[in-house]
Amino acid sequence: MTTLDPRYNILFEPLQIGPVRTKNRFYSVPHAIGMGMVGMDGMIAFRAARAEGGWGVICVEETMIHETSDHAPLKTPELFLDEHIAPTARLVEAIKAHGALAATELAHVGSSGVAWQARAHPLSSSSKFPHYHINPITARTVDKKDIAAFRQWYVDAALRAKSAGYDIVYVYCAHDLSLLQDFLVTNTNKRTDEYGGVFENRVRLLKETLSDVKDAVGGSCAVAVRFAVEERRWQSNLNIRDDGRRVIETLADVPDLWDVNVSDWSFDSGSSRFFEEGQQEPFINFVKQVTDKPVVGVGRFTSPDAMVRQIKSGILDLIGAARPSISDPFLPNKIQEGRIEDIRECIGCNACIAELNHYTRVRCTQNPSAGEEHLQGWHPEDYPAAHDASQSILVIGGGPAGLEAATTLGKRGYSVTLADAGTEWGGRLVREQKLPRLSAWGRVVDYRLSQMQQMTNVDLYLDSRLSAEDVVGFEADHVIVATGAKWRGDGLGRNHHDAIPGHELDHVFTPEDILNGRLPEGEVIVYDEDYYYMASSIAELLAAAGCKVTFVTTASDPVPWTAMTLEMGHVIKSMNEKGIEIVVGHSIAAIESGAVSLTRELTKEEGKRSADAVVLVTGQLSDDALYHELDSLRDEGKIKSLERIGDCLGPGQIAQAIFDGRKAGMNFGK
Amino acid sequence: MTTLDPRYNILFEPLQIGPVRTKNRFYSVPHAIGMGMVGMDGMIAFRAARAEGGWGVICVEETMIHETSDHAPLKTPELFLDEHIAPTARLVEAIKAHGALAATELAHVGSSGVAWQARAHPLSSSSKFPHYHINPITARTVDKKDIAAFRQWYVDAALRAKSAGYDIVYVYCAHDLSLLQDFLVTNTNKRTDEYGGVFENRVRLLKETLSDVKDAVGGSCAVAVRFAVEERRWQSNLNIRDDGRRVIETLADVPDLWDVNVSDWSFDSGSSRFFEEGQQEPFINFVKQVTDKPVVGVGRFTSPDAMVRQIKSGILDLIGAARPSISDPFLPNKIQEGRIEDIRECIGCNACIAELNHYTRVRCTQNPSAGEEHLQGWHPEDYPAAHDASQSILVIGGGPAGLEAATTLGKRGYSVTLADAGTEWGGRLVREQKLPRLSAWGRVVDYRLSQMQQMTNVDLYLDSRLSAEDVVGFEADHVIVATGAKWRGDGLGRNHHDAIPGHELDHVFTPEDILNGRLPEGEVIVYDEDYYYMASSIAELLAAAGCKVTFVTTASDPVPWTAMTLEMGHVIKSMNEKGIEIVVGHSIAAIESGAVSLTRELTKEEGKRSADAVVLVTGQLSDDALYHELDSLRDEGKIKSLERIGDCLGPGQIAQAIFDGRKAGMNFGK
Repeated sequence: MTTLDPRYNILFEPLQIGPVRTKNRFYSVPHAIGMGMVGMDGMIAFRAARAEGGWGVICVEETMIHETSDHAPLKTPELFLDEHIAPTARLVEAIKAHGALAATELAHVGSSGVAWQARAHPLSSSSKFPHYHINPITARTVDKKDIAAFRQWYVDAALRAKSAGYDIVYVYCAHDLSLLQDFLVTNTNKRTDEYGGVFENRVRLLKETLSDVKDAVGGSCAVAVRFAVEERRWQSNLNIRDDGRRVIETLADVPDLWDVNVSDWSFDSGSSRFFEEGQQEPFINFVKQVTDKPVVGVGRFTSPDAMVRQIKSGILDLIGAARPSISDPFLPNKIQEGRIEDIRECIGCNACIAELNHYTRVRCTQNPSAGEEHLQGWHPEDYPAAHDASQSILVIGGGPAGLEAATTLGKRGYSVTLADAGTEWGGRLVREQKLPRLSAWGRVVDYRLSQMQQMTNVDLYLDSRLSAEDVVGFEADHVIVATGAKWRGDGLGRNHHDAIPGHELDHVFTPEDILNGRLPEGEVIVYDEDYYYMASSIAELLAAAGCKVTFVTTASDPVPWTAMTLEMGHVIKSMNEKGIEIVVGHSIAAIESGAVSLTRELTKEEGKRSADAVVLVTGQLSDDALYHELDSLRDEGKIKSLERIGDCLGPGQIAQAIFDGRKAGMNFGK
Repeated sequence: MTTLDPRYNILFEPLQIGPVRTKNRFYSVPHAIGMGMVGMDGMIAFRAARAEGGWGVICVEETMIHETSDHAPLKTPELFLDEHIAPTARLVEAIKAHGALAATELAHVGSSGVAWQARAHPLSSSSKFPHYHINPITARTVDKKDIAAFRQWYVDAALRAKSAGYDIVYVYCAHDLSLLQDFLVTNTNKRTDEYGGVFENRVRLLKETLSDVKDAVGGSCAVAVRFAVEERRWQSNLNIRDDGRRVIETLADVPDLWDVNVSDWSFDSGSSRFFEEGQQEPFINFVKQVTDKPVVGVGRFTSPDAMVRQIKSGILDLIGAARPSISDPFLPNKIQEGRIEDIRECIGCNACIAELNHYTRVRCTQNPSAGEEHLQGWHPEDYPAAHDASQSILVIGGGPAGLEAATTLGKRGYSVTLADAGTEWGGRLVREQKLPRLSAWGRVVDYRLSQMQQMTNVDLYLDSRLSAEDVVGFEADHVIVATGAKWRGDGLGRNHHDAIPGHELDHVFTPEDILNGRLPEGEVIVYDEDYYYMASSIAELLAAAGCKVTFVTTASDPVPWTAMTLEMGHVIKSMNEKGIEIVVGHSIAAIESGAVSLTRELTKEEGKRSADAVVLVTGQLSDDALYHELDSLRDEGKIKSLERIGDCLGPGQIAQAIFDGRKAGMNFGK
């Protein structure tokens, strides 16, 4: 198979994986999408879209082999009953229809789940609380009979996987989400029998399980192991100087494929704020030296050059991807067709993962069709043609929502005008991508601009602040207002129903000030009721600018939403390194010159802290004055059709604005 | 209709509610069960079981009237599409088949939800962050067109409810979970139009909605308002001296029924640790003086005498119940049949609510069939007959799991022997129900004992510690081991993989010591990695005993699981009142004589604190030595059949032990 650019031919070479053969090196690794058996139609549509986009292998995420294993309330695939085979076969068929291999990551989550759905007792190598959970239940020590049963569950599930038509069957031992890892890791394995103690004992169950599964299905399915070679979050024997390497050495050529990564998930799927493309290379680059079997790994790869380098330099045989395949299901086809500039590159914001951590279905900032393939019927690349291509749409505001609406309408063939009051495209992102660590988010703007620049039916106007009168004069068939939002100055947020006394003082700043370059000096309190990235970004910016920063938040954990995006630990570490003091669980009662009064939420005790300046990172307000003016004019018949989207409708994350833009674009003319 | 005890006749008098008539005064108020449209079979089985048990009215929980309203990922009923009518009609039919009226609580959750399922923008009277959520989204201010649309959604949903056959349709304005409440409350309503400002404006939308719904379906359905008369969690205008009363006065006889309570949920469904039966009376007792329409309210009523008093003293017309109807679906029938001692009284532990707060389906400590009616096919009262009544079962351990297993097997007709080593029935509850605030939990023991004492096929033996040899000699057909668990002494818990240095020192206590009456003195650190009730209970016990108590926990919030049971705020308040200092986010690094080293989790900084004693509330270990001994004997053929359940299998909450006991009892002979 050849590509338009021969440099990338290597990415399209087939490869034998045990008894099966992948058409190319693009490998969509197992990753959760939060739909589960009750959402099978959604699962099918999601995976099939990636298969259609050219991925050689499409993996389905952790598939439960027993009722004692779940991530409930997150919905996951299951293969622990025979009745799971038929719906799974539909999924496999949809994947294979596009020439991809279908893989299933058979899993027992061990002590990382609470076995909620079945109200069972979670299992572990040794009795312990489930990690990642606060539930009042203890994972129980499995005994010899349990181990025998576990091995049988794996075999039975593998046989069901084979019946369902899967090409590749996984044994899962990664992310601190596997009973097999509970056995390997000395933090959890306190056993004194032949499954505990020395390495040979702790690896025994993995070895047995792999051997069982190979015996059961090895003739027709490839058997893969997904394995974390290094635990980066906690002190552990699982590292590449120790058992992380030893496992690969011991089992070297037993599996047909090694899918290797690092633990836990917050390091494996590290966000772009803290991890670069290819960040796992120093940990996984030894694997191919130890095994002759194909190796797949991930690195948030979106650049074909980086992919080629991974293969040529002998680090990987297959380019694994989770987030890049969520963000662009058609990434392989685009590379093959030489459409590099059409790649919708993952920005590494982890909005996808945030949804899963909050037990809903996957979403994507860059690709609003992700998770909506079935529900909304959105295809990642194909757009319904305009119902009437002569219709003109005026989109006001060139931030994420407006850019996406204009792009979608443009692709559909309408006559689109996008106008922005500023001198740069991007709306909120013009300023936000300049904050510490957020430059990758600029891809949201770049992608849409590059798409629209290829269209003759889209006119782009910067420096064009439109009045209501201008809009009326434009006589568009439809007007979409996407004028964004501004940060509040009064302190209303998650804890404050009313303005914070003193908010109007001169030494009180808002994110608007900081984003506009008006910075405080001296001792600064950055106060967070927003709970996502803005406050810590400002804190880091100010610390870098020489301020003595104290980060105060009403939340019990700093920046709690970043626990959802797997970033909280990294944010805290970074703030610690920059000497930023973190004060949790306190609200600002009042601000006065030189000081703030803080209330400790637990006790309602008040105290004072000196501060030369305060930055209030609380709520935002939609910039919707123009919309309301236009709305009145619509009532008077002077505007034909009108809607508002994105932050102008309601401030939210960029993913929401993009979703709104797509929705407006898709629904027009319906 | 007459009852066996004529004192209770009044509870069985019919009552007209608008155009419909309830057969009695037992009213199962709307409460979530976490199944939703995808779990309709479960919803049907759950609600039908209560209808069968004699409740005159069965309400279905918050039913969403629009895609902008959800509590996702919690699953809820929906009536915002015509396709929702058919499945809902199945539910209604199942309820009415038993002679109950069916009611639906039509709701728009306003700013209490994040409109996740549809990726919409949440709505509020004024722009604000959604409460109860940390999501990066802002609820948007609804404009006039939105208000008009909202009113239409309510009407459309009411018409669908009527089509589905509902007898009673609610307008929902309670629990801080309603857009209508967002309008009423000045904390959220900052509007300057005719829907904001003075009371008449803030109540306008409730009034209009109620009027709309009456116009739409009032001829055939009763229209109820569910309304919180007092906000007890936050400062608010919604209290009985102010707008809480004024709303009832204003709308007095407009609805056909007033369903009144207090906000928020943590006060309405207050746990037994902090709230007595009938606790809402001082807040709701004015309502009947203001309206001539029937009034229903709740109070965790399980005593028929208390119910009669509520009606006779003119406080309520209908006895509302959520938790008591979860715990005993047959409560009305049992009262009618004079089977007062058979009532399975709610213990007010809020295990039901914890599941909902964690987005799973309802469960119940007292009634393990709750939420399992469809999934497991468990009926709350009927048990499948023994497959062979001559079979004998020995149950070892008279704690929750053993009591439930023996009760279930006894009801099925087997020959059951229950033996316990102690001098009192209850296992862990013997000691735990004596801890501060936990006496109501003793009902778990009382109910099962009273059931078994009516059976001739169950033998109960206290003071009977059985050796493995004794068990072999017993020659039971099946042996169930339910010997419980013990608190660890080494400090292994959620943060510690290895023993805490110094844990073996004399001044280090475990919950075992405290429960056995061995108390420390002086300055005591109670250290919590358990995250539920034990550590705070011990802290309160020791404070009452004169210790100077510091509560230290690794969690960012104290006792975080109690956020799920709606108790966290009450626990914190109580600890504050008792002078217990709370230190969050710290782990014990080491214990030495007179002091502990604490690590601040956020920064990993270490510090010391003096302490005369330390109580380590960390993990538990199953008491499974006897089980393992018997397991070997089974392998030798000396025991026919064997299993372990409850804390002996894996330490957990009492609800889990009861579930295990029921499951063992139901599955025997299968």
